Amino acid sequence: MSPLPEVHITYPDWVSSAVDWDRRYDSVEDRMRLAIALSRENVLRETGGPFGAAVFESDTGALAAVGMNLVVGRHNSVLHAEMVAIMMAEGRLGSYTLGAASLPRHEIVTSCDPCAMCLGALLWSGVKRLVCGATRQDARLLAFDEGPVFPESYQYLRNRGIEVVQGVLREEAQAVLQLYRDRGGLIYNG
Amino acid sequence: MSPLPEVHITYPDWVSSAVDWDRRYDSVEDRMRLAIALSRENVLRETGGPFGAAVFESDTGALAAVGMNLVVGRHNSVLHAEMVAIMMAEGRLGSYTLGAASLPRHEIVTSCDPCAMCLGALLWSGVKRLVCGATRQDARLLAFDEGPVFPESYQYLRNRGIEVVQGVLREEAQAVLQLYRDRGGLIYNG
Repeated sequence: MSPLPEVHITYPDWVSSAVDWDRRYDSVEDRMRLAIALSRENVLRETGGPFGAAVFESDTGALAAVGMNLVVGRHNSVLHAEMVAIMMAEGRLGSYTLGAASLPRHEIVTSCDPCAMCLGALLWSGVKRLVCGATRQDARLLAFDEGPVFPESYQYLRNRGIEVVQGVLREEAQAVLQLYRDRGGLIYNG
Repeated sequence: MSPLPEVHITYPDWVSSAVDWDRRYDSVEDRMRLAIALSRENVLRETGGPFGAAVFESDTGALAAVGMNLVVGRHNSVLHAEMVAIMMAEGRLGSYTLGAASLPRHEIVTSCDPCAMCLGALLWSGVKRLVCGATRQDARLLAFDEGPVFPESYQYLRNRGIEVVQGVLREEAQAVLQLYRDRGGLIYNG
């Protein structure tokens, strides 16, 4: 085969105007509002599913990277919001782990409880905290399958020193799932 | 921020000479031998961890894509062998699911039982069969953490119609893990 296949992951154009990269996101709610805004914008711009995420420096609230679901448009089932945010953050920082001794503590904030793939991925990413908005049940109501995630999965994260905070601004996050359904969005894992 | 971050995933140079893209991989052992060869070459060329994978058309044995662990060199904790193979296969076929009605049945063959992230990812990829070589226990002996994978995780795959075959050419696959350890390879999730 020639040439060999490649995968090139870029943000949708709207990201440059929708994200303030220089501000500090102080509170957990500030951080979640960004994740939810990304999920909403992704639905309104029709660039993917109703999920947004962002990686922050935990102590300063500096933004490392954002992510949004890009699965259908990019022909790539891996591109859930959390995966995009993790890959972009690691690329920017030039490190295969955000938990490197030379780096400040990082955390991932996602508009919905992570699926099995994303839960595994955040373990390898080196983030020290996971903050979620809408719940697995909210996603299931929309017929989005979260895969084999069990209470033991979250315990596994905690045993590895990852703090888990769920249900932050849940109703605002859930409203975007509903918005997606109301607009007839594709439930591609339904 | 300007410009926005991007992620560009390419194969190591050695892939063009190490992979025969045009042959048919008829038996499950033929397919596993390719996955193991990729894992071995990845160790010998020092391009990543001791893991290889490939996606095939199940019925014809045609090769859709290969993958190998590229985490450390590419600064990207997502780039496990299975993830690379899935993203490359979907990109080549221009489909976010290998289970599309217009496509033949696909399967993923991996030199080692998948970690939690990869197990979730293969569920979303639309493959209909998972074939594994070395076991989770073999990886753990090398201090590679597989994350929150439980017997229920495999049952979840089976319930979704995915056939699971484990232990194919296990000793050959395990030997590459040992080779990596003997060469002092980095156990980055240890």
